[in-house]
Amino acid sequence: MTMNRDRDLFQNRHIGPSAEDQAAMLSALGYESLDAFIDAVVPGDIRMRTPLRTPDARTEQETLEELRLLAAQNLVYRSYLGMGYHDCITPTVIQRNVLENPGWYTAYTPYQAEIAQGRLEALLNFQTMISDLTGLEIANASLLDEATAAAEAMHLTEAVSKHEGILVYLVDANCHPQTIAVVRTRAAVRGIEIVVADPGTFQFQANVIGALLQYPATDGAIRDNRAVCEAAHAGGALVTVATDLLALTLLAPPGEWGADIAVGNSQRFGVPLGYGGPHAAFFATRDEYKRHLPGRIIGVSKDRAGRTGLRMALQTREQHIRREKATSNVCTAQVLLAVVAAMYAVYHGPEGLLRIARRVHRYTTSLAAALERLGYGIAYPHYFDTLAVEVPQEVLQRIIDVARARQINLRTLSQTRIGVALDETVTDEDIADLIAAFAVGSEKSAGAAREAPAAIPEGLSRTTPFCTHPVFNTHHSETEMLRYLKKLEDRDLSLTSAMIPLGSCTMKLNATTEMIPITWAGFNRLHPFAPRSQAQGYARLFRQLEEWLAEITGFAKVSLQPNAGSQGEFAGLLVIRAYHKHRGEVHRTTCLIPQSAHGTNPASAVMAGMQVVVVKTDAQGNIDVADLEAKAKEYSATLGALMVTYPSTHGVFEASIRKICKIVHQHGGQVYMDGANMNAQVGLCRPGDIGADVCHLNLHKTFCIPHGGGGPGMGPIAVAEHLAPHLPTHPVIDVGVPLAESAGTVSAGPWGSPSILPISWAYIVMMGRDGLTLATKVAILNANYIAKRLQEGGHYELLYAGQHGLVAHECIIDTRPFKSSAGVDVEDIAKRLIDYGFHPPTVSFPVAGTLMVEPTESEPKVELDRFVDALIAIRGEIREIETGEADRDNNLLKNAPHPLADLLADTWDRPYARERAGFPTAATREHKIWPPVGRIDAAFGDRNLVCTCPPVEAYAEV
Amino acid sequence: MTMNRDRDLFQNRHIGPSAEDQAAMLSALGYESLDAFIDAVVPGDIRMRTPLRTPDARTEQETLEELRLLAAQNLVYRSYLGMGYHDCITPTVIQRNVLENPGWYTAYTPYQAEIAQGRLEALLNFQTMISDLTGLEIANASLLDEATAAAEAMHLTEAVSKHEGILVYLVDANCHPQTIAVVRTRAAVRGIEIVVADPGTFQFQANVIGALLQYPATDGAIRDNRAVCEAAHAGGALVTVATDLLALTLLAPPGEWGADIAVGNSQRFGVPLGYGGPHAAFFATRDEYKRHLPGRIIGVSKDRAGRTGLRMALQTREQHIRREKATSNVCTAQVLLAVVAAMYAVYHGPEGLLRIARRVHRYTTSLAAALERLGYGIAYPHYFDTLAVEVPQEVLQRIIDVARARQINLRTLSQTRIGVALDETVTDEDIADLIAAFAVGSEKSAGAAREAPAAIPEGLSRTTPFCTHPVFNTHHSETEMLRYLKKLEDRDLSLTSAMIPLGSCTMKLNATTEMIPITWAGFNRLHPFAPRSQAQGYARLFRQLEEWLAEITGFAKVSLQPNAGSQGEFAGLLVIRAYHKHRGEVHRTTCLIPQSAHGTNPASAVMAGMQVVVVKTDAQGNIDVADLEAKAKEYSATLGALMVTYPSTHGVFEASIRKICKIVHQHGGQVYMDGANMNAQVGLCRPGDIGADVCHLNLHKTFCIPHGGGGPGMGPIAVAEHLAPHLPTHPVIDVGVPLAESAGTVSAGPWGSPSILPISWAYIVMMGRDGLTLATKVAILNANYIAKRLQEGGHYELLYAGQHGLVAHECIIDTRPFKSSAGVDVEDIAKRLIDYGFHPPTVSFPVAGTLMVEPTESEPKVELDRFVDALIAIRGEIREIETGEADRDNNLLKNAPHPLADLLADTWDRPYARERAGFPTAATREHKIWPPVGRIDAAFGDRNLVCTCPPVEAYAEV
Repeated sequence: MTMNRDRDLFQNRHIGPSAEDQAAMLSALGYESLDAFIDAVVPGDIRMRTPLRTPDARTEQETLEELRLLAAQNLVYRSYLGMGYHDCITPTVIQRNVLENPGWYTAYTPYQAEIAQGRLEALLNFQTMISDLTGLEIANASLLDEATAAAEAMHLTEAVSKHEGILVYLVDANCHPQTIAVVRTRAAVRGIEIVVADPGTFQFQANVIGALLQYPATDGAIRDNRAVCEAAHAGGALVTVATDLLALTLLAPPGEWGADIAVGNSQRFGVPLGYGGPHAAFFATRDEYKRHLPGRIIGVSKDRAGRTGLRMALQTREQHIRREKATSNVCTAQVLLAVVAAMYAVYHGPEGLLRIARRVHRYTTSLAAALERLGYGIAYPHYFDTLAVEVPQEVLQRIIDVARARQINLRTLSQTRIGVALDETVTDEDIADLIAAFAVGSEKSAGAAREAPAAIPEGLSRTTPFCTHPVFNTHHSETEMLRYLKKLEDRDLSLTSAMIPLGSCTMKLNATTEMIPITWAGFNRLHPFAPRSQAQGYARLFRQLEEWLAEITGFAKVSLQPNAGSQGEFAGLLVIRAYHKHRGEVHRTTCLIPQSAHGTNPASAVMAGMQVVVVKTDAQGNIDVADLEAKAKEYSATLGALMVTYPSTHGVFEASIRKICKIVHQHGGQVYMDGANMNAQVGLCRPGDIGADVCHLNLHKTFCIPHGGGGPGMGPIAVAEHLAPHLPTHPVIDVGVPLAESAGTVSAGPWGSPSILPISWAYIVMMGRDGLTLATKVAILNANYIAKRLQEGGHYELLYAGQHGLVAHECIIDTRPFKSSAGVDVEDIAKRLIDYGFHPPTVSFPVAGTLMVEPTESEPKVELDRFVDALIAIRGEIREIETGEADRDNNLLKNAPHPLADLLADTWDRPYARERAGFPTAATREHKIWPPVGRIDAAFGDRNLVCTCPPVEAYAEV
Repeated sequence: MTMNRDRDLFQNRHIGPSAEDQAAMLSALGYESLDAFIDAVVPGDIRMRTPLRTPDARTEQETLEELRLLAAQNLVYRSYLGMGYHDCITPTVIQRNVLENPGWYTAYTPYQAEIAQGRLEALLNFQTMISDLTGLEIANASLLDEATAAAEAMHLTEAVSKHEGILVYLVDANCHPQTIAVVRTRAAVRGIEIVVADPGTFQFQANVIGALLQYPATDGAIRDNRAVCEAAHAGGALVTVATDLLALTLLAPPGEWGADIAVGNSQRFGVPLGYGGPHAAFFATRDEYKRHLPGRIIGVSKDRAGRTGLRMALQTREQHIRREKATSNVCTAQVLLAVVAAMYAVYHGPEGLLRIARRVHRYTTSLAAALERLGYGIAYPHYFDTLAVEVPQEVLQRIIDVARARQINLRTLSQTRIGVALDETVTDEDIADLIAAFAVGSEKSAGAAREAPAAIPEGLSRTTPFCTHPVFNTHHSETEMLRYLKKLEDRDLSLTSAMIPLGSCTMKLNATTEMIPITWAGFNRLHPFAPRSQAQGYARLFRQLEEWLAEITGFAKVSLQPNAGSQGEFAGLLVIRAYHKHRGEVHRTTCLIPQSAHGTNPASAVMAGMQVVVVKTDAQGNIDVADLEAKAKEYSATLGALMVTYPSTHGVFEASIRKICKIVHQHGGQVYMDGANMNAQVGLCRPGDIGADVCHLNLHKTFCIPHGGGGPGMGPIAVAEHLAPHLPTHPVIDVGVPLAESAGTVSAGPWGSPSILPISWAYIVMMGRDGLTLATKVAILNANYIAKRLQEGGHYELLYAGQHGLVAHECIIDTRPFKSSAGVDVEDIAKRLIDYGFHPPTVSFPVAGTLMVEPTESEPKVELDRFVDALIAIRGEIREIETGEADRDNNLLKNAPHPLADLLADTWDRPYARERAGFPTAATREHKIWPPVGRIDAAFGDRNLVCTCPPVEAYAEV
């Protein structure tokens, strides 16, 4: 018996509408109860019959307590393991005001540039820093991890290569093992042959498209690769260099000695280790390859008034435009982490970075000298922060063990070599501990550590400056840093200000309690390759989360490795391909994809070496079952998979989904379900029950990981029993999947980005099974309420609905009629919503000229009403154009959004009042994010591509 | 030998100007080095000859690590000790977005209402909640702690009393012991006789001015005090009730049964225990006493355009206006904590608060029933959350010990009574633990806990609703709460946006690393009366901080008890009085105070029972030594103390300070040095060396505790050896000062507000001795640089300077000439600075019609220049009025500040452009806090006093 009634249940905090509000909305929709309503929305034949077997709801305090216990089971040792991961110091001003600040972490991907200038500037800083340090002209706004960045470099290489036939790609044997594994996995499905070898002795034959080098190498050696580059280029091959940002402050940048592409991890620039992620990988290349650059690129452009404005550049490269012709399926970045890394450089400046690098190097050389005094050899003369120490085979394990007893992890490079990679946290005491550990294998004495000569090869010393832009040379006091961060934050619209009704992106509450643990040392200071015995807390958290996600999806097994939705799609298809292959049906590579699918789907299929066949969509937005059947029959011999989103990308619970799955299975294919719309399924129906074989989950949608302004995310996959043996594996850490049947390695980290998994874990625990299901129901209720109010009174036409005229968790507003009636584009409406204080919904997806709205369960009724009222008011503004009351070209919509600089201008020659433009509602007078620029001209920026910080005068000019 | 050079020194982050900037400023001032400059500023005869003996600088990471170790030495037990302190749950959304958010904690006291509407609204919510719950018409915006609030109630009682002769004040014996002690201390120096007795049997004689009751009593009993109130009122006495907010959700409020004043601690509304503070005490009374209300009151008024606007009301009551005639010396509130408490009520709403209260009560009654089954008696039938359990004397200690072994602290009420006070964190397991602890003294069995009837007396059940305003009934989902907090935050100007150049308020950087530990459980979840053995980390921190502050001030001993500057002043004077008394010179009660002193000084002196004699200031702003000498001689027989601020409130290092101290000593007085300007002394000179006997320190100025938007603060005092025996003591916890010679108890907590002391500790440790001194030098440099630039070119006249024409750490701009030349008041300039994005400096203190500017060392040169440029530009705007170019009444200054609602208005009939009004500089286009209202009419609000949330329509009207 408990007296603990009336506890503060998290579901009441997470779900926006109160019980009264829910009742009011149901009444508006004509339903007596939430259950009756849900019965009307979701086809009966796919409903779950039993409640979810996930935990009972716990309070926020109980959950934090349990997470504290889990964190305490993770041992924070000093990990001198390197391999692209180094402990570092996150400046607390950045930790508190970016990483722990909802103003930054709840923002969306900066599609709407006018209300994203803050993070766009931060990302431009990131690109500038990367470009400077690597010595290459253009850098993107980050990728998922170093290993996938290296794989993307291979894809770029393949795309620009003129070679034909069986293509060969060289990978330096001295690359990080996880990088080699990911590149191998990616190459295998594309039919590229990987040769792992010493580049110095490698012969660049005619079919070699490129090479991947590591600089400094994984064992720390710094080698001069100029000759390799020359040989490669002579053979028409491109050279990619995986590198280290801190080392590059002292080393000649790859761009200066022949590299065509540089990739790497920016983690050590202030981003916590996080047991492997999330971190921001970087990717830089020469100007000539800019149109093949994967991921997002931020570029400088201008607004209508000629003011400098930033926005995502060259979007036509991206998979949502190019679909199966895209060069990459990457549709996100690691924005929050890239911001941290860029701000680390802003805070330290070039001099500060150099001081850090020199200190780390000083410690490394002095350690090397001490180890030599102990009688050990250092394997090579030139290094930055990582030593390969030669030790007699018989003492190696003892040294490793003694170090571990001192809470130090060292890397076993071979039977006679130990790797030691130092970092900015290292102190005199740490060096003394290291010497003491190595001393157990020696009879000599090292004496006290003392300084030793530098070990940077003379010909590879850096001579060019970096981070010379004023932004890196101004904000070095905490006060200035704080104000700079705040200034940028205030330019952006995040969930802290208003609803972000992004269709298919599920911008729900990212609760504080979910976010608190991610900056605890017990979760964020572990090296991904630390012994598993030191990560028992994580192990338990992974196990539970995997179980719950399996239960929620109705599948047997989950892999947490894919660290983005696109990665999940790719991994899911790889698993399907491995399954077919192991059944002797390697030829099953046809992938059916409905017309309406998200652009990532076809891009992922191509990356997975499959051939895309498009299936038609009918007038109601559903998959055309007849066409599907015909295509399945036509490609029956090679049918590998169907990729299907459920509820559909049109926001509808298609009643024929079971039948669709059955058809695919009948023709030997597997069903891949895109989990983007899982927020409409949790607790009501399950992909596994419906007939899918695999699905991915966007933990950053349904399971509350914040979007971070455009990343991080997590895209684990869940699979049916027969696919379980083919889940991803890892070359360094045993994740429980044997290599033999595994589809390979898809991410650098064994479990993707572990440090954000406590967010989803906490969400599931705090909501409890009933709360999770209620959230789904209210998400659907909220969407239908918006749909109803918009249609009622004939304000807008909505596209597509399922049974009983109801939508699922999102709805599509058709704004195409206004093009002819008023000359108004969908973009005009989107931008005008900014004046009303809202983030626009998804524009032109899945149907051009429409807006897709997903309110999620977290938005309260008052916000839904405010949003609908804004749309209705905008409809009124359109009507004024239709009736001729307002001008067709010079009106509130065409000129939207209205920045204050416009509204306060001395001259005002617009045919409408300033007040109406800027304060269209009473609510906007109370609070509103003002766009700092007017509508940005994307095409201008693409024609005049600038992707690094412009000189200060560029801003002053206007 | 260390290789750890080039560490990231905190002093480079804390101090704004870089070395290059410092050089440029020195050059502008005509000095070759910082040392030469400082030699010119500070009189040679008071300079320190040796470096500070405070620790060497440690890095931010080392400091956090050390604080973690200290926190780990504090044991977080469950403390069911009550006495006004209860563990509680801080909603994490409030913790992260208020307590841990520099946007809230770095704000200043809301003197400038137009850029403080956010926290003013939060405080109005606080007042409304207090007024509702206590059933009294008017509440203030918080006081320091429950004990001092009770003492303030006594002062109010005294002030409105018509009684004469020896006044008697009744204190219920069942009040909290610390409250009784503080009231006794305050009464003693005012000559009021305290009678501690049972109010039920007390006879209200003619000389009894009032009574203080506790409801529920300290031992938990709920008694009907109606008869007591009647008796008191019949005798012309006022009744003050110290009460508990959570209990009041279920109990008839004091205002309904006769109380005239209600006081208490709002801590359990979401504010961490903090080992005693800071918390926000509340104070409510009847409308008729509003002009005697101590502390700050927020009131509703309107701006020029008639929009609702909030501001501090009835300021003419305050000590800075009334000086020695003020009813209280309180010049601050606990704003940050009051905001948290108010937001707790906003988040839970009345229903949520009731749920919490009922749950706590349910646990309490079920515990009582179980204890009765064990054979123990419960001392009284009616209680809310606190039980007095009757136990046989021989088992009492065993029960206490067993409970402690289970990590539970119980209160020993007497030899046969144990107190148990439950709180909202209590769970079934806690109750089981409690029963198990009590079971050791009994041979019976309690069985499992089960529900029992309520124990609220029927006649005292609450029947009136509370928190009915929409603000308490809207923001219950986390999304809504977050947006509400953000909306309010965005209305306010804090250090995150711009410099707050408040003279004498030292708005320097509140570094993140300093702030991080205050929300760690090891510092903020300890009960102030937990056994000292559980607070070893705190003990060590106190000891070190006391030592360092003693060293910095040149004194022998420090008391950390005073929890505000005003409290420090009062405590310092009490110590002086105790010293005289113990020397048999109790009559030494004359207190010399210079004309230019801060208003708190005379108010504190009066509170300490002294008679104020004003000493003249000469034309240079220095103390008129001749007048001082004359007054000292005149009052030689009764001379108790001189109160002097150094550097002077005019911002000058007075060269005669040593002489001044000598004169006072010659006449038997003690020198009290006001530490408000300590930021100009640290490391350069010391009050103790100069000749003072005692000083207080504003840790929230010099030692980096943030102002929190108007509190908390800390005002420890440092004293010379001969005063050490007289430092404050405490009735519950041994603070090492014997009662016999102590001046008494000044705060509820033994060490004031301990949980914010790690901030000052960290500052001293991270700056190191050299950094502390450098900060002082740069603070002086920054002030002189501003002074120089303003005077150069004749923009402004400055008042007062010390030797070589240099000021100390602040400067006074004389704006009086513009009154006649342009009709411009100092307020016009202040408000116009808001348009330029700045917080105005101190207005009309210490000289009416002037602005006092203190930049602190944390402001970078670029911000100083931006500020000076703004002032120069405003001077240009004034000149336009002088020349007739601009209108005398309708101009940029008179109409300032300009809210967006004005600037975007459809009609614009001002004789200047909107753009110039709103964007006077390029920097304001980049970023600026827009005032949400125009200039607020303070007088209107005082004439039409409204101090609770106005109905929503009030906002809609405009």
